[in-house]
Amino acid sequence: MTRDEARALDAADPLRAIRNRFHLPDGILYLDGNSLGALPKASVGRLAEVVTREWGEALIRSWNDADWIDAPQRVGAKIAALIGAKPHEVIVADSTSVNLFKLIVAAAPLTPDRPVLLSEKGNFHTDLHIASGAVEMVPGMRLETVERAEVEGAIGEDTNLLLLTHTHYKSGAKFDMAALTAKAKAAGARTIWDLSHSAGAVPLALNADGAELAIGCGYKYLNGGPGAPAFLYIAEHLQDRLISPLRGWMGHAEPFAFTDDYVPAPGIARFLAGTPPVLSLAGLEAGVDAFEGVDLDALWGKSAALFELFAALAAERCPDLTCISPAERNARGSHISFAHPHAFEICQALIARGVIGDFRAPDVVRFGLTPLYLGFEDVWRAVDIMAEIMGRETWREPRYAVRGKVT
Amino acid sequence: MTRDEARALDAADPLRAIRNRFHLPDGILYLDGNSLGALPKASVGRLAEVVTREWGEALIRSWNDADWIDAPQRVGAKIAALIGAKPHEVIVADSTSVNLFKLIVAAAPLTPDRPVLLSEKGNFHTDLHIASGAVEMVPGMRLETVERAEVEGAIGEDTNLLLLTHTHYKSGAKFDMAALTAKAKAAGARTIWDLSHSAGAVPLALNADGAELAIGCGYKYLNGGPGAPAFLYIAEHLQDRLISPLRGWMGHAEPFAFTDDYVPAPGIARFLAGTPPVLSLAGLEAGVDAFEGVDLDALWGKSAALFELFAALAAERCPDLTCISPAERNARGSHISFAHPHAFEICQALIARGVIGDFRAPDVVRFGLTPLYLGFEDVWRAVDIMAEIMGRETWREPRYAVRGKVT
Repeated sequence: MTRDEARALDAADPLRAIRNRFHLPDGILYLDGNSLGALPKASVGRLAEVVTREWGEALIRSWNDADWIDAPQRVGAKIAALIGAKPHEVIVADSTSVNLFKLIVAAAPLTPDRPVLLSEKGNFHTDLHIASGAVEMVPGMRLETVERAEVEGAIGEDTNLLLLTHTHYKSGAKFDMAALTAKAKAAGARTIWDLSHSAGAVPLALNADGAELAIGCGYKYLNGGPGAPAFLYIAEHLQDRLISPLRGWMGHAEPFAFTDDYVPAPGIARFLAGTPPVLSLAGLEAGVDAFEGVDLDALWGKSAALFELFAALAAERCPDLTCISPAERNARGSHISFAHPHAFEICQALIARGVIGDFRAPDVVRFGLTPLYLGFEDVWRAVDIMAEIMGRETWREPRYAVRGKVT
Repeated sequence: MTRDEARALDAADPLRAIRNRFHLPDGILYLDGNSLGALPKASVGRLAEVVTREWGEALIRSWNDADWIDAPQRVGAKIAALIGAKPHEVIVADSTSVNLFKLIVAAAPLTPDRPVLLSEKGNFHTDLHIASGAVEMVPGMRLETVERAEVEGAIGEDTNLLLLTHTHYKSGAKFDMAALTAKAKAAGARTIWDLSHSAGAVPLALNADGAELAIGCGYKYLNGGPGAPAFLYIAEHLQDRLISPLRGWMGHAEPFAFTDDYVPAPGIARFLAGTPPVLSLAGLEAGVDAFEGVDLDALWGKSAALFELFAALAAERCPDLTCISPAERNARGSHISFAHPHAFEICQALIARGVIGDFRAPDVVRFGLTPLYLGFEDVWRAVDIMAEIMGRETWREPRYAVRGKVT
């Protein structure tokens, strides 16, 4: 495919206009929206309004007048619409890590005779670290991890909770949510899905797939801004059976009654803890609002087409890279990853040329294909620059081997 | 005292110029800075810069280039300077509620033979709710609460942790940090101090007072903005003995090594959990920066003088109000509270006249005296308006009895 042909695909793309909702810096090809989503243009004004008018002018009154107090539920309902859940099944709170802790500690006691929290080796590490701490809170509980290929077979009568990341942060490989959830359920276990690399890009149907528990990130495909708060999903039928270990006042039935006794709020609101970070939450709401009117099936179709173009061009022009993401459309998420012994240096050389992807230790370079604002010509140019770098071996220059704080 | 005399006190106030660092809306007397601090003018530009330049233009690179990654430590060190701690003894993370949970669950196992977490009845309720959940995480642990006057006598050989709020959210009564910490220590117990209503207004000397563990709020006297993240203090000698139950990646020794095994970061950084809310954290940093060059002893002297003026004027002009805050300077914080059977309606009538304090159930009206931006004339006018309302009994109008969502 030539650059002109890629440009023609953009011209024919019915989602092309959505790109205008985002600020995309000049001279940059941003292939890292799965790590930090780009800035929606509307977020600038919205955040300025929260700061100057809602905080600065109205001050404490904005908890009611600007509905700060309902923001966790309101934004949760907007996210629910993107992941196939009912509006009252999703709430925004804390970080993905903290939300995972809440769900593990709350859900495990429902089946006290089952001691195992089962997960995948090489799962996103914060999930495994949080899990290792959470199981210590539940008497007799332990964390067991198995290789990805062994997960399904490892579900057994000891399994209490199965903790899986829907789209793998590194490879982009995707689990079959309906099949795994059903398999676990048949064995008497519940599944917690981490949707961080799925929500906002990959088709999700939590209700239809029988999902009971999930968490996800607000600052990747949901474009909520750096460190945006996370979300948490609990299927309706389970909500009143779970008690959060983090019993903050925002999850109390009457937060402003100031009573010593803890009475959990009805429904999912009991999974709120402390006061939410209103500025960051406003950023998340504006990010989610950028999806307004977007056909999610069309969005996924575009993501898949961007992937296929990237894979084809890279195979032709960068043959030293080994694609580690699944070729099969239904088996992958919305990013493409390649292994190379010098992945770090290649990534740095690309960044120096304005192509921003990221490195994932020890040997992977990863490119997020965010269909809301990336186009086919962007993919063409990114591979073109990568081919030029690898053809000239400029990535071998010593300056590209210097590792910064965040890699 | 006349209004002119109050104005003269403002003219002679060496801290008067600090008021210009804040946006104070026209027509409002804001006496609620102990609930949500006013907007520092510099925060507007700083937050716009984070949104448009750091996020919008530099995108993911800002984790390094704008030092987002070090913000929890950097802002923690700035707060440390306000509370008498070493720079590496304070970190910004999560909410006050979540931080309290971490400290209880991490510290209690240090003395496993002691089963009691002791606190005060009527402590800020989220502290008691969090405590009730946290003790369930520690085998054999239980929460016991006693009346304020009984706290000191209740410390015994069963006491593992003593959880006290330094300045009481309702009455403004202050515990003697040095004395209580020493008393608990002599009995073999550790103390966790909640500094939410102290930090930024009341003199604090955590190191000098022997404090080992503390938490506090970022959006009250620290002016961090609505829901700003909270802080956490651990005395140097304890840091490497504690493991957070919330083992998120930001607290890992090598967050970007992506290893399955959890290895806590050295020092207080291990108490970070998930990705911090960068926008809200930037708001907190700008809020703390508003203290630059302020003499904290002078600040407290002003706070005490504002209190004394408020108390004297209210005693004279609003005799139906019962002041429930301590008259003794060393026994109180930086707000003044009054009991009245119709406190709610009085508070609402005041708000309708532009005097913003707040109601605390069941019968307290509370006024925050924020010495960074309040003056003596402000206090005079607030009491003048309150006297007028109470003299005319306009607060009995039915519209003031309607309770909103957040009271």
